[in-house]
Amino acid sequence: MFAEILTIGDEIRSGACVDSNSACIAQKLEAAGIEVVRHNCVGEDGTVIVSVLKEIGHRSDLAVVTGGLGPRDNDLTAGAAAKAAGVDTVLHQKALESIKKYLIIRQRPFLQSYKKQAILPDGAECLSNSIGTAPGFGLQIAQCEFFFLPDVPVEMQQMLADQIIPRVVSMQKGNVGIHLVKTISVFGLTESTAGKRLIEFKPLFPQIKIGFRTKFPEIQLKLYADGTDINRISDYLREATEWIGRRLGDTVFSDNGEPMEQVVGNHLRRKNATLAVAESCTGGLIADLLTDVPGSSDYFLFSAVTYNNQSKMTILDVAAETLDNHGAVAEQTAKEMALGAKHACGATYGLATSGIAGPGGGTDDKPVGTVCIGLATPFSAAAHRFNFTNPSRRMNKQIFAVTALDILRKELLNL
Amino acid sequence: MFAEILTIGDEIRSGACVDSNSACIAQKLEAAGIEVVRHNCVGEDGTVIVSVLKEIGHRSDLAVVTGGLGPRDNDLTAGAAAKAAGVDTVLHQKALESIKKYLIIRQRPFLQSYKKQAILPDGAECLSNSIGTAPGFGLQIAQCEFFFLPDVPVEMQQMLADQIIPRVVSMQKGNVGIHLVKTISVFGLTESTAGKRLIEFKPLFPQIKIGFRTKFPEIQLKLYADGTDINRISDYLREATEWIGRRLGDTVFSDNGEPMEQVVGNHLRRKNATLAVAESCTGGLIADLLTDVPGSSDYFLFSAVTYNNQSKMTILDVAAETLDNHGAVAEQTAKEMALGAKHACGATYGLATSGIAGPGGGTDDKPVGTVCIGLATPFSAAAHRFNFTNPSRRMNKQIFAVTALDILRKELLNL
Repeated sequence: MFAEILTIGDEIRSGACVDSNSACIAQKLEAAGIEVVRHNCVGEDGTVIVSVLKEIGHRSDLAVVTGGLGPRDNDLTAGAAAKAAGVDTVLHQKALESIKKYLIIRQRPFLQSYKKQAILPDGAECLSNSIGTAPGFGLQIAQCEFFFLPDVPVEMQQMLADQIIPRVVSMQKGNVGIHLVKTISVFGLTESTAGKRLIEFKPLFPQIKIGFRTKFPEIQLKLYADGTDINRISDYLREATEWIGRRLGDTVFSDNGEPMEQVVGNHLRRKNATLAVAESCTGGLIADLLTDVPGSSDYFLFSAVTYNNQSKMTILDVAAETLDNHGAVAEQTAKEMALGAKHACGATYGLATSGIAGPGGGTDDKPVGTVCIGLATPFSAAAHRFNFTNPSRRMNKQIFAVTALDILRKELLNL
Repeated sequence: MFAEILTIGDEIRSGACVDSNSACIAQKLEAAGIEVVRHNCVGEDGTVIVSVLKEIGHRSDLAVVTGGLGPRDNDLTAGAAAKAAGVDTVLHQKALESIKKYLIIRQRPFLQSYKKQAILPDGAECLSNSIGTAPGFGLQIAQCEFFFLPDVPVEMQQMLADQIIPRVVSMQKGNVGIHLVKTISVFGLTESTAGKRLIEFKPLFPQIKIGFRTKFPEIQLKLYADGTDINRISDYLREATEWIGRRLGDTVFSDNGEPMEQVVGNHLRRKNATLAVAESCTGGLIADLLTDVPGSSDYFLFSAVTYNNQSKMTILDVAAETLDNHGAVAEQTAKEMALGAKHACGATYGLATSGIAGPGGGTDDKPVGTVCIGLATPFSAAAHRFNFTNPSRRMNKQIFAVTALDILRKELLNL
C-alpha cells in the first residue's frame, strides 16, 4: 500500500514556516507498515489544489492532507476536495455538532464563521477534533482514500493517532509485516567519528538499515528492521544495539529515544537523590529541560539562574574574592556555584554552568563558546572548562546545558 | 516565473528527519521575486526520481533539487537527472577539480568513492562547493532549468546564495518586482477572533495578501505586498499595520517579528529597569526565553526556579503560613514569590509563576492548566489566576511563560 502526504498552505509553500507535520505523519504511517512514497506541498490556490488531489488520487492508495480547513475565505481544502471527487459540498451535521461541543466545553461563543468549517464534500466521513474547532474528513478521490486534517500540529497529531492510524491498520486487513525502529542517542561524538567506529556494522548486520541523524547537540542512530517474526527481529535489534554500545561506549546515553534530561532524571530517582542547579550562561535552560519531564519534582528541587554577580554572591554564596580573582567564567566560580546550589536547599547534587554564549562577551583568553561546569556530589566538588565553536547563542546554550547534564549522568553511572 | 522544490532522500521521505531546506529555498526564491508553486519529496528510488523530474520539467520554469549527490550507491540523483534529460553521464573535470581542491585545503586524502560525485549528466554546468565534497550542477530538463544541490544545510545555503540566486535574478532580466512581508505578532486572541475583527481588511486593503499562522502560543499575521515602487508599498503596508493595531489593540505585541521576550527586554532597557523572576511551574522557561536575547544581562538579573516549597521559603522568603493556608498554587503565593525575587537582588520588577503544568497534580479546585502569576512593581504587587486547557505539559509551560511576560509588557506599556 502506497501513501502520499500533501500540505496545503501559503506559509509552508512560501517558506515562512518549516513543515514539521509531514515528518510526523510519515513516521506514523511507516510505523504502521505503510510506505510513504511522496510528499507534496501547494499553496492556497483552488485550481492547483484540485489538480494535485486528482494526481494523487490516480497515483496512490492512501493520502494524508493537512491545512486549509479553517474558517477563512482562503481555506479552500473542502471545496477543492469536493471538486476533485466530483461531488457537491454540504453542511455536515456531525461536523457542526463537533464544533459546537468543542466551544461549549470551553464556554466560548459560536461564531457564524465556524459554520464554514462544517461544510464538507457530500459523502465525506467527518473526523472529529477534540482540541480545536476544525473537524477533519475522509473522502475517496479516484482510487485513493484521503484523510484531511487541520495543520495545527497538536490537533493533527491527536487525530492521526486516534482516528487515522487505526483506520489505516484495518484497511491493510492483516497484511502488515513487522517494522521495528530503534533509536540510539549519542552525545559527545561527531557524526563522522561515530560513522567511522561503526564501519563494520553493515557487513555484521546486513538485515538492519542504519540511519544517522544530527539532532543538535546529540546524534541519533536509527536502526530499521523488517520481517514477520517479532521475536527474531527484536533479538536481532538487541544484538545490534549491544554491539553499537560496545563500539561507542558511554557516549551512548539512551537506546529508547529518551532525551538526556529524562535519562538523568531516571538515575536520580533510582538513587533517591535530589538535584539543585545554578545557571549563568545556560539562563534557565537546564531547569527548563529537567522540568519538561513529568514527575521531575521528585528529584529536581531548585535552580538559581544567577545572571549577575550580585546574585551569585547573595543566593549562591560565591566568594567576592573568587569573582574578583577569577571572574564569573572560571572553574573556581562554577565549583562554588555548584556547592552553593547544593547547600541552598540541601540537595544531594549541585550542578552549575558559567560561560559565554555570545555573540558578545568573548575575550582572547575566554572566547565565545567557553563554559565552566561545576559538579558538587555528596563527597566532593570539581569543575571543568570546555570550548565549543557553534555559530549561534541558542546552540551554545544547548550544548552547554547538555554537556552539564552529561557530566552528572556519567557521575551517576559510575556509582 | 514559476518554481518548484524537490527533496530527494529516504530520511525526509520516511519522516526520520524534518525538512528545513525547502523552507529556506522557498524564502530565498520568493525574496528574489520567483513564485514557488510546489514542494515535492521522494525517496532514493531511481524510477520515482526520473518520473518526478520529468513532471516538474514539463510543469515549471525553475527547480531547485537537494539530496542524493553523495558518494554512496543509493545517491542516485545525477544518474536520474541524466535519464530524465535523455543524456549520458560523464566524468566532469571541473567537478573533479572542485572535490580535489576541497580536500587539499583540508589536508584530507582523495578516496576513490569521491570520484562518483564528479560523474554528472553530459552538458551539465558544475556548481562548485567550497565547504563540502559534493559539487552541485545545473541542467535543463524539458522546459525547466534545474539546479541540483547537496542536502547538508550549510552547503546548500551557501551555494544557493552565491550561485543560484544570482543566476535566477539574471534569468528574470530585470523583471523583478519588489516583495515586502510584514509580520504582526498577537497574543491573547484565537485565530478566529482575530479573523473576525479583521473581516474588513480585504475590502480596505485589496492589494495586500494576509496570512494567519498559529505559532503557539502566539498568532502571527503576515502581510504580503508586491509592486514596483518601494516607497508606495512601504507606506501602504504601514497604513495596514496601523489599521490592524487599532482593531486588535494591545494584543499586538510586535510588528517586526520580534518575539515576546525581546519586546519585554526592549521596554526594560528603555526604562533602565531590571527584572528578577521566580518560577515554579514554568521551570526556568521564562529565564531561558529572556536569556535567548543577546545583551539580556543588561536588564535580567536573576531567576529562582523554586520547584519545592522549601526553596520558595528559603530563597524567596515566602511565608510558611501562606503555603500552609493557600498552597503553592495561589495568588498570595505568587505575589510573595514576585516580591521575594525582586528583593533578593534589588530588581525594579519581580515576576512569578506558580501553577500546574500536568499531566499529574490537578484537583477539582485547581485543575491542570491553572497558573497564578504575580507581578511586583516599584509601587505595588498583585497576582492573577488563569486557566488554560492545553493538551500537553510543554504547551502549558509555554503559555504560562508568555502570559507572565505579557502581563509585564502591559505594565511597562502603561508607564
